[in-house]
Amino acid sequence: MTKSQPLSIPVISDMFAAHERIKPYIHKTPVLTSSYFNELSGAELFFKCENFQKAGVFKARGASNAVFGLADDKLEKGVATHSSGNHALSLSYAAGRRGIPCTVVMPRTAPRAKKEAVKGYGGRIVECEPSTSSREAVFAEVVAETGAEFVHPYNDPRVIAGQATCSHELIDQIGELDAVVAPIGGGGMISGTCLTLSNLAPGIKIYAAEPANADDAARSLKAGHIIADDAPETVADGLKVPLKDLTWHFVSNYVSDIHTATESEIIDAMKLIWKRMKIVMEPSSAVPLATILKNKDVFAGKRVGIIITGGNVDLDLLPWLNS
Amino acid sequence: MTKSQPLSIPVISDMFAAHERIKPYIHKTPVLTSSYFNELSGAELFFKCENFQKAGVFKARGASNAVFGLADDKLEKGVATHSSGNHALSLSYAAGRRGIPCTVVMPRTAPRAKKEAVKGYGGRIVECEPSTSSREAVFAEVVAETGAEFVHPYNDPRVIAGQATCSHELIDQIGELDAVVAPIGGGGMISGTCLTLSNLAPGIKIYAAEPANADDAARSLKAGHIIADDAPETVADGLKVPLKDLTWHFVSNYVSDIHTATESEIIDAMKLIWKRMKIVMEPSSAVPLATILKNKDVFAGKRVGIIITGGNVDLDLLPWLNS
Repeated sequence: MTKSQPLSIPVISDMFAAHERIKPYIHKTPVLTSSYFNELSGAELFFKCENFQKAGVFKARGASNAVFGLADDKLEKGVATHSSGNHALSLSYAAGRRGIPCTVVMPRTAPRAKKEAVKGYGGRIVECEPSTSSREAVFAEVVAETGAEFVHPYNDPRVIAGQATCSHELIDQIGELDAVVAPIGGGGMISGTCLTLSNLAPGIKIYAAEPANADDAARSLKAGHIIADDAPETVADGLKVPLKDLTWHFVSNYVSDIHTATESEIIDAMKLIWKRMKIVMEPSSAVPLATILKNKDVFAGKRVGIIITGGNVDLDLLPWLNS
Repeated sequence: MTKSQPLSIPVISDMFAAHERIKPYIHKTPVLTSSYFNELSGAELFFKCENFQKAGVFKARGASNAVFGLADDKLEKGVATHSSGNHALSLSYAAGRRGIPCTVVMPRTAPRAKKEAVKGYGGRIVECEPSTSSREAVFAEVVAETGAEFVHPYNDPRVIAGQATCSHELIDQIGELDAVVAPIGGGGMISGTCLTLSNLAPGIKIYAAEPANADDAARSLKAGHIIADDAPETVADGLKVPLKDLTWHFVSNYVSDIHTATESEIIDAMKLIWKRMKIVMEPSSAVPLATILKNKDVFAGKRVGIIITGGNVDLDLLPWLNS
């Protein structure tokens, strides 16, 4: 999406087209259950494990949809983006699969594991300061220099349609659900979830889960308009970015509520998932369970899907060992 | 198996009976693949993920077979065992499911995570020194005091028949394989693997993988008789115990070779599996991959099953953070 084109709200046929387009490049990830967490929460939980996704994160879906949907005359100049890490990784993965160049602007403070992985997939990194304003300024220079196609990490209909394939798989794998809970940062995963469920399973309630330290989406939903914070600090490093117009459309129309969790609640939930489910996942992915455990009355007795969004964590810097 | 009964070598009908008996109490665990590790090894690898098993370890199979095969007149006095951790956990799990008492003798140096988990399942712990001789002495006292049924962690036909159900699932899930690699400590998993494959798929070669620091099984296989070390030291804490007569029968007759890996090779393989496959597993479970990566000529171009034996690791004491 270049600046000259207007953003259009993706529709359900875009999701179906995306799913056909990206199937060769993504995993149909497994859904895990845990009797321990069912007992602990009082709900029946279904964990959609996008930590097992290509590039270790759900964003491989949206990035693959954008890259494999590119017209031939755009391939030579490649793609570019800014990202706190996982979209950078995913766009590099997808560009590598299609054999086109990829430049990413990343905060210099992004986890080392993510930077190394971007390079491993062949992406080129340009560093910025860890604030929204710096990221956008540096990125404008990169686009001017390369002429690459901008694939925004979430405020892009191609990306949202790609992320929407995740809940399409989930309802196919699990059938009836009462609710789905996903983390919210910029709102790409939540928007994709809204796109799919509002069309294919409108009875399923959609809840977002957000770090209390970066609760701009929760405050936005209450206020009725987008509130953006510059450079919030949270262990859930994938969830620091603000909503934009496309994702605000889905959040404001289809999200039932946004619950928040403190840093220690997020870290405790993360460690407990590692310990009991034997899976490696990111702090961001623990926010849904953290919010379910502190809002048990909302979810008790319900069948609840949880999006485990990614698994790209630095194994040398685990948050429960840094306190 | 009390001391007055002779040990008998389990046969394939014992495996089939075990599988029917324990199905309600165990998971049919998933088999994962990784294009990254296929490329790295030059082989096609199939990871049988017993880290997702009940109690977090394959030993839930053997323990469940022993406990649910117990005659009614033995239930009141319950079961007892000695174990470096995982069998203790598994026997406590199985006894808890059947509602009978369980006493376990554990080295005082066993990982805290395993001790807590044993207590969590309702097992009673009696501590010993971290040596084979101390463990056996303390255990004799426990049996004399409680009159409980001894379920040996591996030298017990009921346990071996239970562990044998793992490779029964694997060949059902994957079909043709050229080789299976499993860790070897006392030899319970390897013996079960030999029992199943020698009968149902005799073309599959069986390799054992052992820490170089606790290579008694490799030396035994070369010498042609059991060699037992007292208190070897290795990060693969599940693999410190020696072979016994029943497991020696299977190892000496059906194992093609035993490869060893150093401590740093084991830790590197463990961290790499966590990083790339996003699964939590124990140091012991990393020994097969470590040996495959240093013996690539043996496995190149082959379809190889790897038993990821368990996932009960202390998340506060990860081995790559202690060096």
